[in-house]
Amino acid sequence: MKLLRHGPKGQEKPGLLDAAGRVRDLSAHVTDIAGAALLPDSLARLRALDPDSLPLVPGMPQQDLRLGPCVGGVGKFIAIGLNYADHAAETGAKIPSEPVVFNKWTSCISGPDDDVILPRGSVKTDWEVELGIVIGTGGTYIDEAEALSHVAGYCVVNDVSEREWQAERGGTWDKGKGFDTFGPIGPWLVTPDEAGDIGNLGLWLDLDGQRRQTGSTATMIFGVAHIIAYLSQFLSLQPGDVITTGTPPGVGLGQKPPVFLRGGEVMRLGVEGLGVQTQRVVKS
Amino acid sequence: MKLLRHGPKGQEKPGLLDAAGRVRDLSAHVTDIAGAALLPDSLARLRALDPDSLPLVPGMPQQDLRLGPCVGGVGKFIAIGLNYADHAAETGAKIPSEPVVFNKWTSCISGPDDDVILPRGSVKTDWEVELGIVIGTGGTYIDEAEALSHVAGYCVVNDVSEREWQAERGGTWDKGKGFDTFGPIGPWLVTPDEAGDIGNLGLWLDLDGQRRQTGSTATMIFGVAHIIAYLSQFLSLQPGDVITTGTPPGVGLGQKPPVFLRGGEVMRLGVEGLGVQTQRVVKS
Repeated sequence: MKLLRHGPKGQEKPGLLDAAGRVRDLSAHVTDIAGAALLPDSLARLRALDPDSLPLVPGMPQQDLRLGPCVGGVGKFIAIGLNYADHAAETGAKIPSEPVVFNKWTSCISGPDDDVILPRGSVKTDWEVELGIVIGTGGTYIDEAEALSHVAGYCVVNDVSEREWQAERGGTWDKGKGFDTFGPIGPWLVTPDEAGDIGNLGLWLDLDGQRRQTGSTATMIFGVAHIIAYLSQFLSLQPGDVITTGTPPGVGLGQKPPVFLRGGEVMRLGVEGLGVQTQRVVKS
Repeated sequence: MKLLRHGPKGQEKPGLLDAAGRVRDLSAHVTDIAGAALLPDSLARLRALDPDSLPLVPGMPQQDLRLGPCVGGVGKFIAIGLNYADHAAETGAKIPSEPVVFNKWTSCISGPDDDVILPRGSVKTDWEVELGIVIGTGGTYIDEAEALSHVAGYCVVNDVSEREWQAERGGTWDKGKGFDTFGPIGPWLVTPDEAGDIGNLGLWLDLDGQRRQTGSTATMIFGVAHIIAYLSQFLSLQPGDVITTGTPPGVGLGQKPPVFLRGGEVMRLGVEGLGVQTQRVVKS
């Protein structure tokens, strides 16, 4: 099942993608793709619906339809850093002995194809294609063996990052990770049964048509189940929390010389089976 | 005006403290002390009410009434670190040249008198009395001269911190700042007209009746207006966001030798004019 949210910013309605790639409206069955709607019972109820019985979303052709972030009301947007050995190497960082955890402010979350804004004064805004985890059942002290049962689905995340703010302005990375539009999420929340082998998904990002990032979740240092179990020792997870799991090599900071985003450029990025995002970069 | 939230966890109702120190219910006038209810028009509407016309909250004596966090639906819980020169010194850190920003996961927020849980495996859980800012009008790129007009009110925060997780487990401080119950907020959201001179408020914390922290916001390195203006360059602020502004000296980590919380102890802490919190420390 591929769940999504469609409509203008802040007024998104729930929907799903049918087998023919059309958007069907779920408003009659669930208020939002958020919170308790992500619990197993709710997902089972949605899965039992016949997609052909759901109304097609008006406003065809659907390529003109805006998709919002595929999860609403995200309570926590948790990020794992340096989780691909080759990416750690390109940034000059050591391979971490346990997951590096940081925060993306929830107000940075945007739709998969919304513009990415270069904040005032930014000179080092960078891209990071990542596999995102959307939590269904919450908890603390989750056993690694049970961890995948806490997943509602997976999605593409662009962990947009201002490198100067992240690393050169004192304090934690959080300063450079959470400006508005720095968190495109979607296009779809893909339930685990359709997400394939999450331990072996290709990831890629093109900037203005040029391939910049290529990787596979097979080279993650800490896998999905370990990340969930690990995090749940330090915080409680709730339905609708999003965890983004780190980026493969090829970020701007890792180029020689480093390359950062400029107004007018276009990022296109995807994770195998989870869809594609396209963002135009605009100056503040 | 002293706004608050009363009732069982997750079912809190809005209220206010009247001049006699009694809790009056605001349910007929506002859904929650949260989000848009914190905008200037809404606060003006509440201020125009005659407190004596509001129902007293049943369940007297009111010392038995549970207070929840004084703000609901907090979207971001933003924290400033090392913001008192003498606290920076006691922890061995340099005085920061610009604000140190970190995150407290919103799921850590609890009521002012709720138990504080020592997480499994924690050996260095510590206390931090702080002045909290509750945002009313949101924004980005806020001018420092206008910043105080974005404040809905102030409150007491205990920025409970697991020092090993914060500093010795890799990555950002966020790992040690956000376990459930690590963010008591309240008892009241005190509107600026009643909060006194926020640049000169006393702060204190007692552990089992022994004074541990004593300070004044007068020794903050970065003041409230500067913090708001600064943060708004890196993220957007929304109504109901909470910013906690750093702690004065006397934390457990700064004792010689360091002292950390143990099950059964009681923290009592306050900020001048903003009320008092009391938390029992319990093992997980």
